[in-house]
Amino acid sequence: MLVTTVSLGSTGATSQRHPDELIVEEPMSIQLDGTLVATTVRTPGNDYELAAGFCFTDGLLAGAEVRNVRYCAEGAASESAWNVVSVDTDGRAPAPRPRLGNTTSSCGLCGSESIEALCEWLSPLVDGPGMALDVIAGVPDAVVGAQGLFEKTGAVHAAAAFTPSGEIVLTREDVGRHNAVDKVVGRMLLDGSLPAAGFGLFVSGRASFELVQKAWAAGFSALVAVSAPTSLAVRTARRANLLLAGFVRGDRLNVYSPERISASASPPIAADA
Amino acid sequence: MLVTTVSLGSTGATSQRHPDELIVEEPMSIQLDGTLVATTVRTPGNDYELAAGFCFTDGLLAGAEVRNVRYCAEGAASESAWNVVSVDTDGRAPAPRPRLGNTTSSCGLCGSESIEALCEWLSPLVDGPGMALDVIAGVPDAVVGAQGLFEKTGAVHAAAAFTPSGEIVLTREDVGRHNAVDKVVGRMLLDGSLPAAGFGLFVSGRASFELVQKAWAAGFSALVAVSAPTSLAVRTARRANLLLAGFVRGDRLNVYSPERISASASPPIAADA
Repeated sequence: MLVTTVSLGSTGATSQRHPDELIVEEPMSIQLDGTLVATTVRTPGNDYELAAGFCFTDGLLAGAEVRNVRYCAEGAASESAWNVVSVDTDGRAPAPRPRLGNTTSSCGLCGSESIEALCEWLSPLVDGPGMALDVIAGVPDAVVGAQGLFEKTGAVHAAAAFTPSGEIVLTREDVGRHNAVDKVVGRMLLDGSLPAAGFGLFVSGRASFELVQKAWAAGFSALVAVSAPTSLAVRTARRANLLLAGFVRGDRLNVYSPERISASASPPIAADA
Repeated sequence: MLVTTVSLGSTGATSQRHPDELIVEEPMSIQLDGTLVATTVRTPGNDYELAAGFCFTDGLLAGAEVRNVRYCAEGAASESAWNVVSVDTDGRAPAPRPRLGNTTSSCGLCGSESIEALCEWLSPLVDGPGMALDVIAGVPDAVVGAQGLFEKTGAVHAAAAFTPSGEIVLTREDVGRHNAVDKVVGRMLLDGSLPAAGFGLFVSGRASFELVQKAWAAGFSALVAVSAPTSLAVRTARRANLLLAGFVRGDRLNVYSPERISASASPPIAADA
């Protein structure tokens, strides 16, 4: 795509027209057993992983096995047909309800919606072998080495799965951070690698509630973010027994969950007695 | 909230436990005339603006006047009741349809969903008086001066409305960029200031399709982003006749829409003949 870069100087403006590589963003609809469950705007690529991962982290599968994932593009000439992906469990997943429906009074939701409800299908994670602080500190650099797209466009987010020794085993990118996470989770689901107990999940940028919820759903032992978490993300991580580190930069990092840690570079993080 | 900062040195790790100010994130449900239309996770504050702005930019009002905005918290003891906001048009807005519903076959969406459909209710913007490049270049610094929250937490996004001379008239912040934009639009809607023809909209971070769509819906003449736009954002801005600038940093900026510009610091941007 052609773009104009303008430089403003004391003697006036100069401009240059040049091709620029932009991150691609397209809408994609996700169906579960024939029912539309979500429409997301994503970076095309790894669409099956995204669709399967979304259904999993949103709790829609409820343990049902994914039998098939496909584009709804059979014989269709329209390019937009490639933007609908169907996840199939042969009807074993519960029938999805529309997320937004009519209420019968003007306050049908009052008191019934709470943040607890969004995670009520999840149990706290079981303590794993832990994760060493120096491993966590090294993850962002390791991911940058594995990730090429970001440097080209400046607009994409990354998510990655890493082992307790800090090895990056899977990296996915997307214009949406939640999509990048769903792609990682979807790949592991389709590979039969879930729950991801013992593994860590890395995300570029901030750690929102949504990302903590997805990491929890997939069973990761740690969530490592480059930037700040929100208060709700921290509260949820503590409830999940999920290790949450933020502002992981160079040789410094913040640990938000568990609330108390024994800091030592060599042994794994442990909660203080 | 108490956080542990760990510093990893060659002689081992040191840690310090200290209070940290985190950006607050809470879910909020939006009702239009008694029907649930969205649940978003937002930074509490300016909730009425957010609810009204969302209904407007999502096309749900269809020109209907907002008669009332209120919390569904009458007499309720639960704190979560403050997380439901109802926008009331006395039934003048069209009855909202659930966004996600059942389809009758496994491919009920094929060919019917397209990016065009998401903007089909919008007409291209009429050419305004234009916006000078040096005004656009100065907007990010002007917004930083008006914005305090970001520096404290590092996790919040900002949106702002500015005049053709670069004056910041409104700034809103939120953990979600789309929410910050909806708060700005909602304030202008409730003030009777829409459409925002001649005004510019500033957003921290990237310019996604969603933000272009919201700027277009509110009638802004320009969208100015600190970081990169996506390809779909650029395509949509060109279709909307919306000026789109990105990577606005110091004395350099990129103009993505219109496709061709006459660069000159003093006169407004004009499309090349």
